[in-house]
Amino acid sequence: MLPASGLRARNYPANTYPYRAESHFLYFTGIIDRPGAVLWLEDGRATLFVEPSTPADALWHGAGSDFATLGARTGVDVVAPLTECPPRIAQHAPHGIATLPAADPVTRAWQNHHLRRDWPLEGFVELARAGDMALAEAVIALRLRHDAAAIQAIETALGGTAAAHRQGMATTRPGVSEAVVRAAMEAELLARDLVPAYGSIVTVHGEILHNTHYGNVLQPGDLVLADVGGEWQGWASDITRTWPVQGRFSATQRAWYEIVLQAQRDAIDMVGPGVRYRDIHRRACLTLARGLVDERILRGAPEDLVERGAHALLFPHGIGHLLGLDVHDMEDLGDRAGYAPGRARSPQFGLGYLRLDRDLEPGMIVTIEPGLYRVPAILDSPDLAGPFLADGTLDRERLDTFADVRGIRIEDDVLCTASGHRVLSHRIPKAVAEIESAVGHAAP
Amino acid sequence: MLPASGLRARNYPANTYPYRAESHFLYFTGIIDRPGAVLWLEDGRATLFVEPSTPADALWHGAGSDFATLGARTGVDVVAPLTECPPRIAQHAPHGIATLPAADPVTRAWQNHHLRRDWPLEGFVELARAGDMALAEAVIALRLRHDAAAIQAIETALGGTAAAHRQGMATTRPGVSEAVVRAAMEAELLARDLVPAYGSIVTVHGEILHNTHYGNVLQPGDLVLADVGGEWQGWASDITRTWPVQGRFSATQRAWYEIVLQAQRDAIDMVGPGVRYRDIHRRACLTLARGLVDERILRGAPEDLVERGAHALLFPHGIGHLLGLDVHDMEDLGDRAGYAPGRARSPQFGLGYLRLDRDLEPGMIVTIEPGLYRVPAILDSPDLAGPFLADGTLDRERLDTFADVRGIRIEDDVLCTASGHRVLSHRIPKAVAEIESAVGHAAP
Repeated sequence: MLPASGLRARNYPANTYPYRAESHFLYFTGIIDRPGAVLWLEDGRATLFVEPSTPADALWHGAGSDFATLGARTGVDVVAPLTECPPRIAQHAPHGIATLPAADPVTRAWQNHHLRRDWPLEGFVELARAGDMALAEAVIALRLRHDAAAIQAIETALGGTAAAHRQGMATTRPGVSEAVVRAAMEAELLARDLVPAYGSIVTVHGEILHNTHYGNVLQPGDLVLADVGGEWQGWASDITRTWPVQGRFSATQRAWYEIVLQAQRDAIDMVGPGVRYRDIHRRACLTLARGLVDERILRGAPEDLVERGAHALLFPHGIGHLLGLDVHDMEDLGDRAGYAPGRARSPQFGLGYLRLDRDLEPGMIVTIEPGLYRVPAILDSPDLAGPFLADGTLDRERLDTFADVRGIRIEDDVLCTASGHRVLSHRIPKAVAEIESAVGHAAP
Repeated sequence: MLPASGLRARNYPANTYPYRAESHFLYFTGIIDRPGAVLWLEDGRATLFVEPSTPADALWHGAGSDFATLGARTGVDVVAPLTECPPRIAQHAPHGIATLPAADPVTRAWQNHHLRRDWPLEGFVELARAGDMALAEAVIALRLRHDAAAIQAIETALGGTAAAHRQGMATTRPGVSEAVVRAAMEAELLARDLVPAYGSIVTVHGEILHNTHYGNVLQPGDLVLADVGGEWQGWASDITRTWPVQGRFSATQRAWYEIVLQAQRDAIDMVGPGVRYRDIHRRACLTLARGLVDERILRGAPEDLVERGAHALLFPHGIGHLLGLDVHDMEDLGDRAGYAPGRARSPQFGLGYLRLDRDLEPGMIVTIEPGLYRVPAILDSPDLAGPFLADGTLDRERLDTFADVRGIRIEDDVLCTASGHRVLSHRIPKAVAEIESAVGHAAP
């Protein structure tokens, strides 16, 4: 049993956030806009329980799809009114009905009540029942590898995302605010009937990794880091570009940018069937470490630096994650989707943030997103940076000469194919020359 | 005790909708971006309980405001860690602590647990406890009348909203989609660091009153109805304009538009201290009815038509509502805010949808939003339209000659002042000539 979830209230019950069905439900039904629906799979037959449209709905929201239309759209065997769902449940032992925890707390409470689960109303749930675990594994097995239609959907999302990044670059000039650049980017998504797949990051403070404020004014020496991806019919995309406000990288900015770009190229080159994703992460870390050694910011052999985690002082996050209906695909299931059976997160700082450690298979789509950041909370931390400063691994004085770089990230979405890989996000400026020619140059 | 509420998951726990604090909490604290905070008022002292920033927060989200900064920003007496809130609650009988139900289900469950309420997790709650009711009345008494700072905030929101509507008109031309017009409008909001205060309506099907789909392509004879309002620091605005895709109203469209505009003028003219809002609604209904009689769509005396509810066949909703931090201000408290003590909703179709029936006072901000719609669910309803067709009140054949009008609404935000009123949304094209000159004319 997979629920679509309900509408989420924003500031009062009737003022709701834009609705979007649960991904597991959406995957099987293709229905993104029917709050409260439930998909029931039993004995090889699919039943879709939905709230019938009322006359008041017709007045306020227009005629909804009738049952016959929903049946044809979804291919389910039966469409039935939602009121018939609890009696159907009652025909079974509640614990015997497999389900997955909804993101919506009200729906989760409904699951707790009707299916006798004891889940918290929000946050990650560690599944305890064998049936639920089996359902999770079955869903993961299907959703890990994308078919042609899913790839097409993500490419549609990426078409809008590419336009958004080009427009963001074109809108950039000293004196405009982050908010203006963000608006120009999201408008490209909305104009194509896409929505942001996640909270857009458009900031001159790229070192704040999940920064979703847009209040700064772009200054001549700043870099803009934009992590913006559109979602089409529920299918996500996830792209980051970093560009200079003035249209030209400084020597220091360019040096770091080229290191990140090389790390991304090296990592993307590795994507292919059978390759362990953690090895791709390590490959990117090695390239970053080598670049930082070349710039005399780190001292030592790259292999040794990566082994000890020194690169994580400047690249604290993972090289990427699964992409699909969720921007971090199936992250609701924790590491069950991202980590192959028998693998677990590393306790090491940096590597511990890696969200994916599977052997890649054709049809998987992953992000490849190396970066370099000067994060005060890391570099000023006696715990994290202290040991590397004490033994001379990190040259803080040299690092501080790169003061006009706060954060750089370059992210693309890459499909693993039978013969290697295909970069799905290929129409977005990325090389230094492309970036520099795409940025607007007019005076503020 | 007033909670700020928590983040709301979208498709998985870590991918949350843009956060916005509960309006009651926001009203007293001015803090819009601190999920989980709680405002505690006791013995004339205010305590703000907040989750302290962690080192991981600093890494991912940047340094948050510290307690001293929060204290200075809010003017509360004490800022304390959230962990001290439950012990503070435990010093009291839980039922003796007055509170109001959060919009967020998880927060509401927290209130149920700690304060021993038995509220449903979502939807409107009829308050049962005297303390909660007294708190609701006290909050309403404060929030009903806006001070200069609140009016300024709403005018700031309206500045972006005005730009959005002008841009929407300028972007309109045959062949572009509703999504493109919506994107152009919302981009004006986002560029000013506003957010949409509610789900934008931008549609050629204005007869679907709460239509938040944007999939249609604008055709030459269509009208665009745009109900779009920005929110600034939590303060809402709410504006509707209707304009012709080709830049010129047809004769039939213009006839209806002028009727709606006259109804709006007549209603706005009445706004002033001591005036009963329901009388303003009735005034607009009379003007609409008179216009429809002049157009030979309705037959009878306007007073009699309004008395019988005939106008509601084409104007089924109320003339407007309170505006403040919520676009339907304090609608979480049901009609307690909108209806003066002793007044209740009418059972009559149309009038029953009126959200406000108070005597206006200086400082109140209300919307005035008459409209005319051809809603199939009403006009084809034997219950609603049948009697008026049977006795010849409604001339369906004549009505059908207005086939190129599906829905027209004109909405402004009006402040009641000591001497009368002030229209806050005055810089947005509204007269026919203004509208026609503001619409883009280029070929698709």
